[in-house]
Amino acid sequence: VAKRLEKFKTTIFTQMSNLAIKHGAINLGQGFPNFDGPEFVKEAAIQAVIDGKNQYARGYGVPDLNNAIAERFKKDTGFVVDPEKEITVTSGCTEAIAATMLGLINPGDEVILFAPFYDSYEATLSMAGAKVKGITLRPPDFAVPIDELRSTISKNTRAILLNSPHNPTGKMFTREELDVIASLCIENDVLVFSDEVYDKLAFEMDHISPASLPGMYERTVTMNSLGKTFSLTGWKIGWAIAPPHLTWGVRQAHSYLTFATSTPMQWAAAIALRAPDSYYVELKRDYQAKKAILVEGLKSVGFKVYPSSGTYFVVVDHTPFGLENDVAFCEYLIKEVGVVAIPTSVFYLNPEDGKNLVRFTFCKDEGTLRAAVDRMKEKL
Amino acid sequence: VAKRLEKFKTTIFTQMSNLAIKHGAINLGQGFPNFDGPEFVKEAAIQAVIDGKNQYARGYGVPDLNNAIAERFKKDTGFVVDPEKEITVTSGCTEAIAATMLGLINPGDEVILFAPFYDSYEATLSMAGAKVKGITLRPPDFAVPIDELRSTISKNTRAILLNSPHNPTGKMFTREELDVIASLCIENDVLVFSDEVYDKLAFEMDHISPASLPGMYERTVTMNSLGKTFSLTGWKIGWAIAPPHLTWGVRQAHSYLTFATSTPMQWAAAIALRAPDSYYVELKRDYQAKKAILVEGLKSVGFKVYPSSGTYFVVVDHTPFGLENDVAFCEYLIKEVGVVAIPTSVFYLNPEDGKNLVRFTFCKDEGTLRAAVDRMKEKL
Ligand SMILES: CSCCC(=O)C(=O)O
Ligand SMILES: CSCCC(=O)C(=O)O
Repeated sequence: VAKRLEKFKTTIFTQMSNLAIKHGAINLGQGFPNFDGPEFVKEAAIQAVIDGKNQYARGYGVPDLNNAIAERFKKDTGFVVDPEKEITVTSGCTEAIAATMLGLINPGDEVILFAPFYDSYEATLSMAGAKVKGITLRPPDFAVPIDELRSTISKNTRAILLNSPHNPTGKMFTREELDVIASLCIENDVLVFSDEVYDKLAFEMDHISPASLPGMYERTVTMNSLGKTFSLTGWKIGWAIAPPHLTWGVRQAHSYLTFATSTPMQWAAAIALRAPDSYYVELKRDYQAKKAILVEGLKSVGFKVYPSSGTYFVVVDHTPFGLENDVAFCEYLIKEVGVVAIPTSVFYLNPEDGKNLVRFTFCKDEGTLRAAVDRMKEKL
Repeated sequence: VAKRLEKFKTTIFTQMSNLAIKHGAINLGQGFPNFDGPEFVKEAAIQAVIDGKNQYARGYGVPDLNNAIAERFKKDTGFVVDPEKEITVTSGCTEAIAATMLGLINPGDEVILFAPFYDSYEATLSMAGAKVKGITLRPPDFAVPIDELRSTISKNTRAILLNSPHNPTGKMFTREELDVIASLCIENDVLVFSDEVYDKLAFEMDHISPASLPGMYERTVTMNSLGKTFSLTGWKIGWAIAPPHLTWGVRQAHSYLTFATSTPMQWAAAIALRAPDSYYVELKRDYQAKKAILVEGLKSVGFKVYPSSGTYFVVVDHTPFGLENDVAFCEYLIKEVGVVAIPTSVFYLNPEDGKNLVRFTFCKDEGTLRAAVDRMKEKL
């Protein structure tokens, strides 16, 4: 294995999903729904296959999807972007992240991550030869330590990675936090890479795209995907929105990482993104009901549950149950209780920071959530 | 744009396909069929979507597809590989190439390419920080200059990239050439990265996988895809087969480049790969008829057509028509004749080497091929 990837292990999501299967445990680990995506989107994919939309897509996206992404961005942020010059369709947001890092970051550039962070950020920054600077968000509220951020920015800082709603904590960056971050970025000529895949799962406050703040569009790559919003995580349709000078870098990397993304799924994604507002309202309502079941359940089991404002995740403090750390707790939970959660220590530069916290997802049908809670009540 | 991608332009395939649309030209440039894939494969994809196979696949492939790939490899080469430890499903062969380079090549490693070469090889090697060493295959027969190869290998050589049948020339590496290359690799502890996406389009001789040669499996990454063999280039299902120690690197990079590939398309790919032998026989027969039409047509127009043993491409010498170089010729061909071909100079480290050669594809229905020939006969 090349040195750039030496320090990384099999992704925790794969590890835990494999263990779930092996032990017949209820999988509240990896974030994929155990229910299907909407019929109208599935039908659109089927129609595209039937219609022979089966050859290479245009590298940066089938025109109709680029248009639909631009329309949605306008609806969400008020910003008008050029679908031909400012949008790149990728193989999931994961590829958007990789293409952004490899397309825009040079060896030695510093990039700031807020820990805990999704594991691909660090791995792709390592591929790009970047120096990763971590700033830890701490419970209970996972607030941004502004002074620490200010002192972490240096003349070598090229970008800050934002992820709101935030995986794994469910934290949403407040307007105040984003305003300060924006002014620091402008002052220090720093880019923002914004992973917003959970934007439609914002429960306690409105989602704010950093790109929509004054002066920020020109320095922001906004990344999103179809999977979470449409319960089709396996279709792997993502995108990056950025001004032309940044899009150029993203597209160059994308061209040589995957060239293009599944054509029939792109046509279906274009239909999906034009869903009526009622779709998003219902999605949120459904998830709020699921969240209530899981959060109440976890509390009744005896966890300290940290407030989650968005995403389909919650983190809890497992220490009431006396296990040594998050990894040991998750192991016990799988083997003795039959439930899978995700240990969070892998999402920190210093694993110690995450040793008390584990993440549960509620992107499962209500019966599954209740069954998991019942198992924990009985056996924890 | 990051320095690693500075020297690369918009891929030639995108450039030329855009020009084809703009000028209403017949597109014999980018290699995608203008006919559809087989019904049984399309139906399998539709069924997978209906059946709710729409969430994240296992990162390295849905088990059924890994099994089908192993079965096909066994059928093709006699080799039994472990689908769990030696196969990684990727988003097209393009991602297999990127993951191989980023997963196995360190900065400063030397990698040997045979020019002309598919453009993503050089771009992904640049992402990996490799030193690219080019060896030019020259017409008429594009034979491997063995002495030059021998003297190009140094103690820093980490890998040789092979691509047989070879894009763009249609050359197939002979048994003798592969034997010498294999012994040089073994002697010098060099890996082989083998792009075999055209293996089922081998017309003039049998395809030989370098991995099947004595002592080579353990040092070879064999890459292939669904797109060319099943006329479904837009589905973007590829894979890499390699011994576990090499698969580890490929998988690590893949995990963080895209994580996983479209789930329903993977299920369909598994069905496709188990097609009866008659499917492959017919495919070849169809393509042989198309090839005859194009090759005879190009000769009758006045090109010098170089023999192509495999792939759905032929290269020709355009100099009888008096244009300055391949780029000028292709420009003239699009604008004045209404046919798109691919200039080859972009596939060489030294563009001068390709200035007499352009590539045509015959992955089009016979009417389209005849119409293109007619246009050239009339206007060239
Ligand atoms: C790509 S696997 C991870 C899915 C996910 O977003 C999560 O569980 O955090
Ligand atoms: C990925 S676009 C290129 C398609 C192809 O393989 C070719 O035309 O050479």
